[in-house]
Amino acid sequence: MDTAAPSAVQLAGAVVDQLRRYLSDRRRDSAYIGPEYAELTAALEEFVLRGGKRIRPAFAYWGWRAVVGADRDPVADDARVLRLFSALELLHACALVHDDVIDASATRRGLPTVHRFFTDLHRTRSWHGTSEQFGLSAAILAGDLSLVWADDIVATAELPAEAHIRVHKVWADIRTEVLGGQFLDIVAESSGADSVASAMTVNTYKTASYTVSRPLQLGAAAAGDRPDVQALFHQVGTDLGVAFQLRDDVLGVFGDPAVTGKPSGDDLRSGKRTVLLAEAVELAERSDPVAAKLLRTSVGSELSDAQVRELCQVIESVGALAAVEDRIDTLNRRALDALRAAPIDEHAKIGLAEMAGLASNRSA
Amino acid sequence: MDTAAPSAVQLAGAVVDQLRRYLSDRRRDSAYIGPEYAELTAALEEFVLRGGKRIRPAFAYWGWRAVVGADRDPVADDARVLRLFSALELLHACALVHDDVIDASATRRGLPTVHRFFTDLHRTRSWHGTSEQFGLSAAILAGDLSLVWADDIVATAELPAEAHIRVHKVWADIRTEVLGGQFLDIVAESSGADSVASAMTVNTYKTASYTVSRPLQLGAAAAGDRPDVQALFHQVGTDLGVAFQLRDDVLGVFGDPAVTGKPSGDDLRSGKRTVLLAEAVELAERSDPVAAKLLRTSVGSELSDAQVRELCQVIESVGALAAVEDRIDTLNRRALDALRAAPIDEHAKIGLAEMAGLASNRSA
Repeated sequence: MDTAAPSAVQLAGAVVDQLRRYLSDRRRDSAYIGPEYAELTAALEEFVLRGGKRIRPAFAYWGWRAVVGADRDPVADDARVLRLFSALELLHACALVHDDVIDASATRRGLPTVHRFFTDLHRTRSWHGTSEQFGLSAAILAGDLSLVWADDIVATAELPAEAHIRVHKVWADIRTEVLGGQFLDIVAESSGADSVASAMTVNTYKTASYTVSRPLQLGAAAAGDRPDVQALFHQVGTDLGVAFQLRDDVLGVFGDPAVTGKPSGDDLRSGKRTVLLAEAVELAERSDPVAAKLLRTSVGSELSDAQVRELCQVIESVGALAAVEDRIDTLNRRALDALRAAPIDEHAKIGLAEMAGLASNRSA
Repeated sequence: MDTAAPSAVQLAGAVVDQLRRYLSDRRRDSAYIGPEYAELTAALEEFVLRGGKRIRPAFAYWGWRAVVGADRDPVADDARVLRLFSALELLHACALVHDDVIDASATRRGLPTVHRFFTDLHRTRSWHGTSEQFGLSAAILAGDLSLVWADDIVATAELPAEAHIRVHKVWADIRTEVLGGQFLDIVAESSGADSVASAMTVNTYKTASYTVSRPLQLGAAAAGDRPDVQALFHQVGTDLGVAFQLRDDVLGVFGDPAVTGKPSGDDLRSGKRTVLLAEAVELAERSDPVAAKLLRTSVGSELSDAQVRELCQVIESVGALAAVEDRIDTLNRRALDALRAAPIDEHAKIGLAEMAGLASNRSA
């Protein structure tokens, strides 16, 4: 790893190294509880190491570098904080494993979800009871364990006492917020809330804050007491995080299935309440009532590929796609301008600019 | 509260006070995330405050008193550590809420379980989607939130740095162990493991260690660096914890439904793998093959009240009930002997003797 200016790929690799070591240690240390437990801990390990962009620890790393100053030890200090920041990946694994149960999703990153893995295991072994209930139960426990081990990383981080207090404050917020975002999401989907405002609130807590602002703040908190940088990261992180989510919205409708790993028009079929969709409905109501009705009635139902293509065309023709792309662009530029002018480390500015590009211009 | 020698009832009351204050603060502080979130945080609060014996924080309190010495400030210090130990109740709430999902239980402490509460809420509001999936999802998130808030209490406890490290070590173990115990439990139930040894392993991690040893050790760890007392509490806690679980086993079969709040012979109907049942099967195999076959084939199936009475009679007549009562008695006496001889505070010895009695002689 180029310790002065690690690339996003190098950072992701270093995070995976930390996770691999930590999870292997924890699996070994918990073996005394019973040989069967290793099936759960190994499944969690496999899920965490299987893939993912490791975007949250990378934001935390640059948040840390923004403040830490030139006298850091680039080997020992980096390893120490990357271990801490890899807790974000375990928290994320909990969120994904439980979310897959909540959404009853069968696959994740092209492989069976954790509950499906244990459902299949139960079935293969011809065990008693229903395989689905066993799979569900194992996935709840696997998610819990991931959350517990994430917390253990943060609690045992080698940090000065004041840094610990600052870091824990952010860590407390991020966890309470992401659970709030998940709950607001299922309430919005159940109650049929379909305003842009409602979709934005879910985005803020389930994604923007959780993916960018809070990781940036966690990193800065580990490095020093800098309320000015915390405020900057709140603002920049919200912009980049919302841009990240809006890119997700676009990919969920227009993404290439071969690259995203999800079926085409996935969000249209599932009826996900996205800003893109809310924007399309609001624009169509003003200019094209027939299109508005089509969006309202068909999104979230069984759709043929032809119907998906028709809906995509509507979303584009009423101007929603362009509006969202504009918004991504504006948010991105505003964030980069704020970073450029900020009193933070120059390497961090470059690293954060790379992350901003990755977050908003990706294709998967 | 009698600060020199608080009764079990006084301790439970003090723990509830801490929980009430903490949960109310957290609910208020997370209100900014969205008004709907309050439905989840309020439901969790209601569930935690609804009832329970608060046995784990009480063991932790006496573990602390065993070591802390006479110069403690009985008002400020007690409030401080009772706040810390109340984290055990939030961890327990997570375990119960998720366990109720895993076991698909409809009631807990005589009221609807959390997933049932949210299922009903969804149905009452005629929301979209299936009410059961919404209830399940909300309960997963409520359990997660309880776990997160429990961790936040431990992370922010006002303790010297070395005490924090000691406390967190026990806290890490207790959480990894209880999840292990829960997983071993569902594996044993699914795979049909029915030995006494298998039931004892589940008991150790799901109950004994989690309910007594680790809480005692958590308390001692908060007070000082006393490896001798940690070892004593491991031994005493395991004895008392297993006695506690064995009492549970007896109540699950012979308990008075009016007192336990569960149907008569509940464990026989659900097919729970208890030591009492494993003992009955092993004894019957030696003395009464017909009875052994009856136990093997009927436990865990739909049972009439008459069949439950017949099974109870078998469990008693083969000597399993007496064997388990003997074992409870032996464990209890061994634990009390060890405590009597130990170099710990005299008030703590009395408090722990009271807790031992409550754990093994209760009727609910």
